[in-house]
Amino acid sequence: MKILVIGATGTIGRAVVAALSPRHEVVSASGHHSPITVDLADPISIRAMYDAVGMVDAVVSAAGLARFKPLDQLSDDDFQFSLSNKLMGQVNLVRCGFEHVRDRGSFTLTSGVLARLPMPGSAAISLVNSGVEGFARAAALEAPRGIRVNVVSPPWVTETLQSLGMDPSQGLPAASVARYYVESIEGTQTGVILEASKMSR
Amino acid sequence: MKILVIGATGTIGRAVVAALSPRHEVVSASGHHSPITVDLADPISIRAMYDAVGMVDAVVSAAGLARFKPLDQLSDDDFQFSLSNKLMGQVNLVRCGFEHVRDRGSFTLTSGVLARLPMPGSAAISLVNSGVEGFARAAALEAPRGIRVNVVSPPWVTETLQSLGMDPSQGLPAASVARYYVESIEGTQTGVILEASKMSR
Repeated sequence: MKILVIGATGTIGRAVVAALSPRHEVVSASGHHSPITVDLADPISIRAMYDAVGMVDAVVSAAGLARFKPLDQLSDDDFQFSLSNKLMGQVNLVRCGFEHVRDRGSFTLTSGVLARLPMPGSAAISLVNSGVEGFARAAALEAPRGIRVNVVSPPWVTETLQSLGMDPSQGLPAASVARYYVESIEGTQTGVILEASKMSR
Repeated sequence: MKILVIGATGTIGRAVVAALSPRHEVVSASGHHSPITVDLADPISIRAMYDAVGMVDAVVSAAGLARFKPLDQLSDDDFQFSLSNKLMGQVNLVRCGFEHVRDRGSFTLTSGVLARLPMPGSAAISLVNSGVEGFARAAALEAPRGIRVNVVSPPWVTETLQSLGMDPSQGLPAASVARYYVESIEGTQTGVILEASKMSR
C-alpha cells in the first residue's frame, strides 16, 4: 500500500512510520522537516499536500495541536486554535482526501484518552478529541467506495511522559501505540475508536 | 432556585420550563420571543444576557443549531456555523457563566443521540454533540465553588418526529426528556452525560 502519514515527525508519527515502512510505501508529511509539508489548520495547504502526493491507499493523521491550560485561562483564541488545528484539521483531511484515496482505502485519525478521561487543563483538548471521534463515527457511514474511517485514541505515551519529566511507567511506548494504527490500516473495521491501552495489548 | 433556561421556546426547552416552573423561578431566554434574547454564536450577546439576568442557581441550555446534510454537501460554512453555534455557544455559556452562578449551582447542556449513534447526514452534528460532551466532562473538573456541569443527550423527540412527518413511535416525548434536565439540576451529579432514552424511564 501507499500510505500518507501526516505528523510523521512526532513521537507517535515516527513510530507509525517505523511500523509501516517494512511492508508499505510511506509518504511522510508534517509541519516542517518532512518531504511534504502541510499546515493542518489551512484547507488550502491540505489540498496542496494531496495534489503533491497523488493517489494513496491510506491516510494516517498523527497530527494536530490543541491547547492545554486551566479552564479559566483558556482564551477564545486557545479554543479557536484548537478547533482549527486538531479538530477541523483532521476533519478536513477526510473531507478533502476522499478523492485522493483508492477504493477500500482508509483514514486513521488521532484523538486521545482525554476525550473520555479528562484532567484539569484538558477542556479544549477533551472537546477536540471527542469531536474528532464523533465526526469519524459519522463520516464512516458516508465514506464512498468502501473507504474506511477510524480513530486511534492513544493514552499517555511513555516517550512523551519522559520528555515532560513525568513518571513514564504510566505510559504506553509509542511503538505499542503504533500497532493500533497498523490495525486500522490493515484491518477491515470502520467507524471505530481504537482505544490504545496497556490493558489490551 | 432561580433557573435560566436558554432555548426556552424550543420543543425541549418548553418542556423543561414546564417541568421546572411549579417549583422554581424560571427565566426564559432564546433567540427570539423570550423575555431575554440571546445569540448563542456571539459571546458578547451571551455576556449581555448574563448581565441582564443577574445571579442564578442553574443554567440550562436546550439551545444550539448545527447543520444536517450529506457529508459531501457539508460546506466549510456549515461546519463553521455548527461549531460556532451549538458547540462553542454552549462552551461559552459555561465559560462566561461561572461568575453568574451561585455556589453549588449547575450548568446543564444539550448534546444528542447522534453523538454516539450517527446517521448519514449527521457528520457536523455528531462532531458538535461529541465535542459538547467532551468539554463538559472536562469543565466539571475545574468548575469553581461546587458548581456542577452535566449534559443531557436527548434521543429523537416525539414532537420533533411528528413535525418532520416521521414515525413518532420511535421518539421520547419532550416531557420525558425534560425529566433528565430536572435530574441534572436538582441532583448532585457532575461531569455526567445523561442519556435520555425510552429504555431507562
